[in-house]
Amino acid sequence: MKEIKIGLIGAGVIGSGVIALLKKNRELIKKRSGCLLTLKSICDLQIKKKNWLTDSEFKLTTDYRQILNDPEIEIVIELIGGTTAALDVILGALKAQKHIVTANKAALSMYYSRIFKTACEHKREVYFEGAIGGGIPIIKVLREGLVGNSIKSIHCIINGTCNFILSKMNKLGMSFSDALADAQRLGFAEANPDLDINGYDAAHKTALLAMLAFNTDIDIRKVYTEGINSLQAIDLAHARELGYTVKLLGIAKNHGSKMEVRVNPCLIPEHSSLGSVENEYNAVLINSDFLGTSLYYGKGAGSYPTASAIASDLTDIAKDIRLKEFNKYKYMPFNAKDLMTAGESAAKYYIRINTIERPGIFSSITAVFARYKISLEKVIQKDFDNLKNIPIMFVTRTCSEKSMTGALGEISRFPFVKGKPVFLRIEEL
Amino acid sequence: MKEIKIGLIGAGVIGSGVIALLKKNRELIKKRSGCLLTLKSICDLQIKKKNWLTDSEFKLTTDYRQILNDPEIEIVIELIGGTTAALDVILGALKAQKHIVTANKAALSMYYSRIFKTACEHKREVYFEGAIGGGIPIIKVLREGLVGNSIKSIHCIINGTCNFILSKMNKLGMSFSDALADAQRLGFAEANPDLDINGYDAAHKTALLAMLAFNTDIDIRKVYTEGINSLQAIDLAHARELGYTVKLLGIAKNHGSKMEVRVNPCLIPEHSSLGSVENEYNAVLINSDFLGTSLYYGKGAGSYPTASAIASDLTDIAKDIRLKEFNKYKYMPFNAKDLMTAGESAAKYYIRINTIERPGIFSSITAVFARYKISLEKVIQKDFDNLKNIPIMFVTRTCSEKSMTGALGEISRFPFVKGKPVFLRIEEL
Repeated sequence: MKEIKIGLIGAGVIGSGVIALLKKNRELIKKRSGCLLTLKSICDLQIKKKNWLTDSEFKLTTDYRQILNDPEIEIVIELIGGTTAALDVILGALKAQKHIVTANKAALSMYYSRIFKTACEHKREVYFEGAIGGGIPIIKVLREGLVGNSIKSIHCIINGTCNFILSKMNKLGMSFSDALADAQRLGFAEANPDLDINGYDAAHKTALLAMLAFNTDIDIRKVYTEGINSLQAIDLAHARELGYTVKLLGIAKNHGSKMEVRVNPCLIPEHSSLGSVENEYNAVLINSDFLGTSLYYGKGAGSYPTASAIASDLTDIAKDIRLKEFNKYKYMPFNAKDLMTAGESAAKYYIRINTIERPGIFSSITAVFARYKISLEKVIQKDFDNLKNIPIMFVTRTCSEKSMTGALGEISRFPFVKGKPVFLRIEEL
Repeated sequence: MKEIKIGLIGAGVIGSGVIALLKKNRELIKKRSGCLLTLKSICDLQIKKKNWLTDSEFKLTTDYRQILNDPEIEIVIELIGGTTAALDVILGALKAQKHIVTANKAALSMYYSRIFKTACEHKREVYFEGAIGGGIPIIKVLREGLVGNSIKSIHCIINGTCNFILSKMNKLGMSFSDALADAQRLGFAEANPDLDINGYDAAHKTALLAMLAFNTDIDIRKVYTEGINSLQAIDLAHARELGYTVKLLGIAKNHGSKMEVRVNPCLIPEHSSLGSVENEYNAVLINSDFLGTSLYYGKGAGSYPTASAIASDLTDIAKDIRLKEFNKYKYMPFNAKDLMTAGESAAKYYIRINTIERPGIFSSITAVFARYKISLEKVIQKDFDNLKNIPIMFVTRTCSEKSMTGALGEISRFPFVKGKPVFLRIEEL
């Protein structure tokens, strides 16, 4: 039985999960797969402070080049995160003829072509199951399980921090800032939560899923991305009354020669499969030509779930090493697809317009919608105490985003309209 | 690029799905995986009647030995079903040095050891993603995605026919026979639905999942199996009032040296992830030590979804063929685990006892429960018109099935009890 020596770079939260998994289940993996995964070296800048790591078990270092220069090590696990040092480690390891396992969605989505070009040049593998959806084996499902399917669309709840915050806002009526504070207190949001709440982390992951699903390249900077930080409790309350819940969705749709890839908060049916995904959980809903609708659900982050994904990657690489033949196909995008702009996309919309009581408001507003050929499915106005701030809600039928923003631009200039109209997309799923 | 020639035996509903998939997405699979899957020969006893199949495209035959004797063919897809001719085909193909892809859960669960012993002897692979959960890539998930996890439990809705019938009973209050007739009319139940409604099909699949999850052998004849045909609308209505829905669950639990593997109708929380799986959909909920809770959901049967699974198997075998090295590990059960008997297992129970109005009924019944050390969580008696047939419902706390059936045995002998008490397990999930 071949023993495979591994170097781990970055022994933080996820790294310690990998160490724990290989300690507890290494024998199980050996019996199941016939490969013996041995963690030989660990590199971390703070290695001296991690006194639960001992020299007798592992070779410890603060210099990652020691791992890259070790000819015995065949696989490097990169878990330092970020896009600078991590990129050096990934490219350096590939050039040193080592396979890479990483959970770094930021570096991958930003430098996809460069990383996989280097991998192909050096005939080494890059696996990243832990980068998307934590331990949910979604990369394996897309690449292998659904290999025979043309993918029509992906809808995903892929950022646990946002989903945790939105769960509190949806269920308890909390404000965004209170829910964020709660998430931070409980460890579900970082001290600096910007990358999560602005939607960038979800955009990285959604872009990677879309690249795999549609076998195409995507410029992450062009992916329309909207976070959850400007959501207001009042809109979530209205959504609930209409039978919806608000989720931050990653969306990737195949429109033939064009594709739509975007991340934004959406109203989705409360009792749909994605609507019932709560708290820190993630889920990916895939619609494909042969399998139809399928869904994959689990913990989208954290030490142990991500370690589960990394163990799967290690076992796959062990098989690739035995195969001795590098499969360049899985890295080569062979479809050229343009990204749709935000304006080109079409959806149903929830709209809230704050108004001052005055006769003729409805006819003025609806005349604008009519001129932009926007059909309305629902109109809701409630009895409000404050006649100087009456919210009117509309649910449109499917229309282009360009028409909708055009109409709202005009409507916002009416003297009886207070502030900027709010709109949120609706995905019926 | 290596071209792999395939023989298909059985061109029924699923076989025609495979033919359609390889026609539509063969190029896509080639570009994604680098392997060219060519369907060369098709065998079916009714081949002459299938005039959509042409000699110019495929070699057509009614004799499967023509495929087994064709040295060009490397993979045989067995889709004839059943446990007699199918077993001959599977073993024959392996002995003829061909790899097998099958969706035959009955043959697999009944002859698992024999089939995999033969596969190991001849160093050929047997893949069966289509046998369980249709196109949901659950075998791949268990074997590869969760390879680093010790599996604690599996709960699955794995028979689409039963789930379709139960959805109608739960939501519309239909009787079992009406719901079955509906399912047959709509093509979700066979003319002879016994294998489905008696729970045997679910038992085959659950046993296979448990074998893979716990890496052990299971004698399918010892798996406790209960169908849905004796369920009564009244109990489903009571379940609903209590916040539950009734599902046919496959359950596999790892209790250390023993394991529990069973199929029976269960009360599960209506708004749980499995509780919201409706109609012909399947779902598998896995609890494992590192990943935690994860769920896999999709169409559990049918031509196209199963073809999706078979395409994944074909691509995997194409890689195995290039690997040239047979991996015997994945077939070898290395854990010896005894199956728990039904009596040994423990659960919460829903119980309905039909009684004749008389003073002292409650004290007599609850005294028996007390003697068997069964705690009660809920007791419900409603005002009924008919004093000669008053149902009393109990929800117990967790107790052993042996105690529960013992208590019900005594209770059924009270003169005021009419008929046999009904009980259903509750899984809180």
